[in-house]
Amino acid sequence: MGERLKGLLEPRSVAVVGASPKERSIAGTILRNLQGCGYVGKLYPVNPRYDEIFGLPCVGTIDDLPPDVDLAILAINRNVVLEAVEACGRSGIRNLVIITAGFKESGDEGAKLENQLREMIERYQLNVVGPNCMGIIHSSDRMKLNASFSRWFPPGGEIAFISQSGSIGETLLECFEDAGLGVSRFVNLGNRAGLTENDFLPHFAQDDQCRAIFLYLESFSDPREFRRLAADIVKTKPVVVLKVGRTEAGAAAVASHTGSLASSDAIVDAFLRQSGALRVTTIEETLTALRALERGVLPEGNRVAILTNAGGAGIIAADACISHDLQVPSVSNRLRERLADFLPPEAGFGNPVDMIATASSEHYEKALDLMLDESDAAIVIFRPPLVFHEPVEAVSAGVLRVAEKRPNKPVLVCTLSDGETVAPLVAPLRDAGIPTYAMPETTVAAHSILCRVRDLRKQGEWVPAERLDAHGGAEAVLERVRRAGRMGLFFDEGAELLSAYGISVCPHAYITNGSEGVRFLSEVGSPVVLKIDFPDLAHRFEQGAVITGIETPQALGEAIRRLHSVIDSLALDGTRLLAQKMISGRELIFGLEQDPSFGPAVMFGIGGTLVEVLKDVAFGLSPISEIQAEQMIRSIRAFPLLEAFRGQPAVALGPLVQIITAISQIGADFPQIVELDLNPMIADEHGAMAVDILIRLAAE
Amino acid sequence: MGERLKGLLEPRSVAVVGASPKERSIAGTILRNLQGCGYVGKLYPVNPRYDEIFGLPCVGTIDDLPPDVDLAILAINRNVVLEAVEACGRSGIRNLVIITAGFKESGDEGAKLENQLREMIERYQLNVVGPNCMGIIHSSDRMKLNASFSRWFPPGGEIAFISQSGSIGETLLECFEDAGLGVSRFVNLGNRAGLTENDFLPHFAQDDQCRAIFLYLESFSDPREFRRLAADIVKTKPVVVLKVGRTEAGAAAVASHTGSLASSDAIVDAFLRQSGALRVTTIEETLTALRALERGVLPEGNRVAILTNAGGAGIIAADACISHDLQVPSVSNRLRERLADFLPPEAGFGNPVDMIATASSEHYEKALDLMLDESDAAIVIFRPPLVFHEPVEAVSAGVLRVAEKRPNKPVLVCTLSDGETVAPLVAPLRDAGIPTYAMPETTVAAHSILCRVRDLRKQGEWVPAERLDAHGGAEAVLERVRRAGRMGLFFDEGAELLSAYGISVCPHAYITNGSEGVRFLSEVGSPVVLKIDFPDLAHRFEQGAVITGIETPQALGEAIRRLHSVIDSLALDGTRLLAQKMISGRELIFGLEQDPSFGPAVMFGIGGTLVEVLKDVAFGLSPISEIQAEQMIRSIRAFPLLEAFRGQPAVALGPLVQIITAISQIGADFPQIVELDLNPMIADEHGAMAVDILIRLAAE
Repeated sequence: MGERLKGLLEPRSVAVVGASPKERSIAGTILRNLQGCGYVGKLYPVNPRYDEIFGLPCVGTIDDLPPDVDLAILAINRNVVLEAVEACGRSGIRNLVIITAGFKESGDEGAKLENQLREMIERYQLNVVGPNCMGIIHSSDRMKLNASFSRWFPPGGEIAFISQSGSIGETLLECFEDAGLGVSRFVNLGNRAGLTENDFLPHFAQDDQCRAIFLYLESFSDPREFRRLAADIVKTKPVVVLKVGRTEAGAAAVASHTGSLASSDAIVDAFLRQSGALRVTTIEETLTALRALERGVLPEGNRVAILTNAGGAGIIAADACISHDLQVPSVSNRLRERLADFLPPEAGFGNPVDMIATASSEHYEKALDLMLDESDAAIVIFRPPLVFHEPVEAVSAGVLRVAEKRPNKPVLVCTLSDGETVAPLVAPLRDAGIPTYAMPETTVAAHSILCRVRDLRKQGEWVPAERLDAHGGAEAVLERVRRAGRMGLFFDEGAELLSAYGISVCPHAYITNGSEGVRFLSEVGSPVVLKIDFPDLAHRFEQGAVITGIETPQALGEAIRRLHSVIDSLALDGTRLLAQKMISGRELIFGLEQDPSFGPAVMFGIGGTLVEVLKDVAFGLSPISEIQAEQMIRSIRAFPLLEAFRGQPAVALGPLVQIITAISQIGADFPQIVELDLNPMIADEHGAMAVDILIRLAAE
Repeated sequence: MGERLKGLLEPRSVAVVGASPKERSIAGTILRNLQGCGYVGKLYPVNPRYDEIFGLPCVGTIDDLPPDVDLAILAINRNVVLEAVEACGRSGIRNLVIITAGFKESGDEGAKLENQLREMIERYQLNVVGPNCMGIIHSSDRMKLNASFSRWFPPGGEIAFISQSGSIGETLLECFEDAGLGVSRFVNLGNRAGLTENDFLPHFAQDDQCRAIFLYLESFSDPREFRRLAADIVKTKPVVVLKVGRTEAGAAAVASHTGSLASSDAIVDAFLRQSGALRVTTIEETLTALRALERGVLPEGNRVAILTNAGGAGIIAADACISHDLQVPSVSNRLRERLADFLPPEAGFGNPVDMIATASSEHYEKALDLMLDESDAAIVIFRPPLVFHEPVEAVSAGVLRVAEKRPNKPVLVCTLSDGETVAPLVAPLRDAGIPTYAMPETTVAAHSILCRVRDLRKQGEWVPAERLDAHGGAEAVLERVRRAGRMGLFFDEGAELLSAYGISVCPHAYITNGSEGVRFLSEVGSPVVLKIDFPDLAHRFEQGAVITGIETPQALGEAIRRLHSVIDSLALDGTRLLAQKMISGRELIFGLEQDPSFGPAVMFGIGGTLVEVLKDVAFGLSPISEIQAEQMIRSIRAFPLLEAFRGQPAVALGPLVQIITAISQIGADFPQIVELDLNPMIADEHGAMAVDILIRLAAE
């Protein structure tokens, strides 16, 4: 697959169709960028109106181009784009970057044009970036190529950057440069009529010059393929995604901006987590994340040692650690004694260890070495004090010696300044891949990202749940419902389908008369509940269609009579009465919906009104591994309610994991199930049983 | 009060005691700073070992100083500090900055010295900053004074900055300068043996050259006085506080750093909110806040218009608005039509309005003017596109014209860069007080701060709740309990105390036999609950000391027998049985505790296990105004459960506000009440009644 895009990303020669001698035009800028960036291949401006542009001889038309052209950049009027693409196809130019705007993003006419373009791409099997894009950049030892009108050309580095938006792409290239982040690849996807992010991911995954992949996206072109690719890539390289349109207002803007359908944000969160990709939400967080990931050492645990010569900064760092769920364990007594051997009594010996302003580079080196014994990572805060009897780089040297001895423990350095005083301290650290930051809270945010990337690596690991061979039995049920012309399932049909996937249902029976009822009552024991089983009946409690807490045959007889009169009054002819054993335990909610972009989505939550108000639920997208299912369960805020609590034993998590993976499989096996709601399921220390089952099928 | 500190903050002449010719020593740096900063008063180095230092004639001892010295800076050995302070006192030098460290922060001996210092300050009525501090700075048109060893001397501006920590103080001075923020006053408090933040606040409040006051604090020296001062100041000037030690780990570091007692962070949040001060949590947020507050226009509502020529940045801004609880309402149809008159059809007409890269300065001006019709503030995103046919400052000029026409609607500008391209755009905006930012998320964060400051101004407004004249009745109850030698109150005692403060209690009666019980049952109606009323009985439900749901005289008789046997088995001789009417409604929790630093703290929450797990409660510190009490109630996440919900009418908020203000008054009237728990109180659309009452007094 690397081969397929080689001509696009590393072309031997490039034609700029529509090249112009106007310096400040887009077409002129592209040619100037190609000339000025250090590109060593051949350049052909194509424009019948000029003999030469910027000293390069002009070619009249695409048909006149020599056969060695690997890549054509189209910076021409919208009306002639299709013609030019056709000409490229005919001439055997397979790789195109279409800069021209005015396609899908600009209304019906543009959308029509884009469809024609897609057909042509298909017909000639072209690799097309765009239309409506800024171009592509390659800046490595192998090649310098600025096939874009970006004003920023990165000096090279280890980040591959794929951006859906041009303006944000250019903005970030500028930010990356200011932050000292190296970018070797930049692709602005634009409208993605041809190539998408998924085409570039495998290429950058195999590229030795790329250590991290960053994507700015407003929508995913093919989420399932993205997940398949990312889950594999993150085993060796972090994938960082700034997916915007998180909120309703943002999503509305996305829709008008790119014509893409935005998806519910909780689902996107779940999707990226399951892909093993790190989701960032702001440009600041993007910069922090990429700088932290440059070196790539991920900590084993969450224990952080904080070492400082400025007390207040240590406190800010400790505060930030706790808000990021990192641990700042106090140093042990043994360690405290060893620190006291060389630190003054005025020092603070907790964690942070505040070595006060008199700390020397030797103090830093010794204390860091000792503290790493008891932690998984260290944050070293050093602000050069007014009186410091050494060159500041002595501190870096000590830190580097310790870091070298402990290659699996990340050390991050905070200098409380990015001014000249600390420059000699920062330079050797950066060269050695130790991330440095000015502010303590940013240092901690960076470390928290290392921990998240470590956890995501596990989330992305694909250990599929055992696949159930339930398809046959479930299919028979759905076929019966379909033939009956219904969209909702009766309880027994739902129970049969769930049972085929190993999901337990509470003891139940249909009751036509008192004596059947008494038999059920004696079999399962009291109390029982009696309800009218009618799939399309909304608000069943309010309608009086459910009677709970039935303890005696007399009460049961009375309940049967009352429900029959409800059936009569609501004209629910032919419906049956369902008796269920009332079981006690903790109420859970499981659900399934089919997301138009992301496919089957499983929801999990704890029952009750407060959860409803707080929207404390977790989503997972099919397929869901057991690790991912357990992560869903543990991620809800109310999770402590499932643990041993007020004398009740902890709910068994294993069965809940099985239910989630089974529902995920149901959603994948039967896309026609548009809605599935198990609300509530009752769980205890042994397992969980469905009490209410709502399943609805799509209209045919 | 301005007069009192005039000699300290605007001295006519300064003595540097312990001055040294060593350039890189602290004492040497202070003298150099005073010489180099532009200070025009007289400078007297004091040191018997030199004749002159840096060209200034040296004075041998403090006693030799001329009588005009307003301020003495002590940069001498710890052992001679007291002697020097005594000499200053004797010589009539009232204002001192004690740089020397080694006092309270360094252990028992230092603490002893500091106590002696405090006595001396009291005796001579001295104004002392420090000890263990960096010094003070004044940089305004009136005076340039760098009486510190800080390496950063601000060029002047409108922020007054009070810092407890020296290293963070200097760090922030550097950050402020980088961020273009002007500081005119800097005080590093150090150990606060003499002057505290509360001494400087009124001074800076009256200073015309100060438009905002910023404090970095690790603890408050006198919280109630701070609140009294701040609530007054915030009516005209924002007070921004970076109070660190938010978390347990941070608080541990604070304790070792300054020897101060750190308080629970939720209480600090409540305290600052009630003071009307803006709490910031990171250095980044500090910078964002102070830059937003420079101009000082606060929006009336939360509606934000977003205008952009870069779609992606608009989306990021809209996302950020929603996560900050700001509204991004869609533009009206009327407005959409007027925008369509001049914007191209490819533009996005929602909100954000994406004018695409072809937008001119005229487009910006017209669209901004129109959009402000329908919003309270605007975020203008302008990234100079590659092809832009005007100077970028044309965009600023248009924005400024609109902003001038609408002085009550803040306009914030985001340039997606802080490079040279945008410098000519940014400069005129900054000069006119329009805040500019590089990143969209930072722009939104800044705007959200303006909204918070507006809301805090209302929070700080002191409209006291009507004060209840309940003291007498309540005192009689507590006196009876004290004389009985108890620390806990019986239910009837608690009920009497609450009733004196207007808090309702559910119908109840003590029952000694069946017939009394039957009478109560017939009076109040079933069901009733019967419990053993014994203040020190923990886990009453588990002990079988409470029987609920009693409907009949028979059940009541049985309950009386059962509870008597519990009384016997637990040997609770002399306790009584309490009958209560069981009432239904929504369960609430109210509590009171006495915080060692902040005084009486009232807690409010919704009952139930989930709330307990999620710690979804609000705190308020006495005194609590009605506005503040209502804010507490509305601030809990589960607040929607109190509104009309699932067929139940909304809970009446007025009575809850009265309960909170009453408990706050109880806490203030009776500091000996160390604990008060009303868990639950049952609330409905009419009011709320206490069902359980736990009140404990301090041991005498």
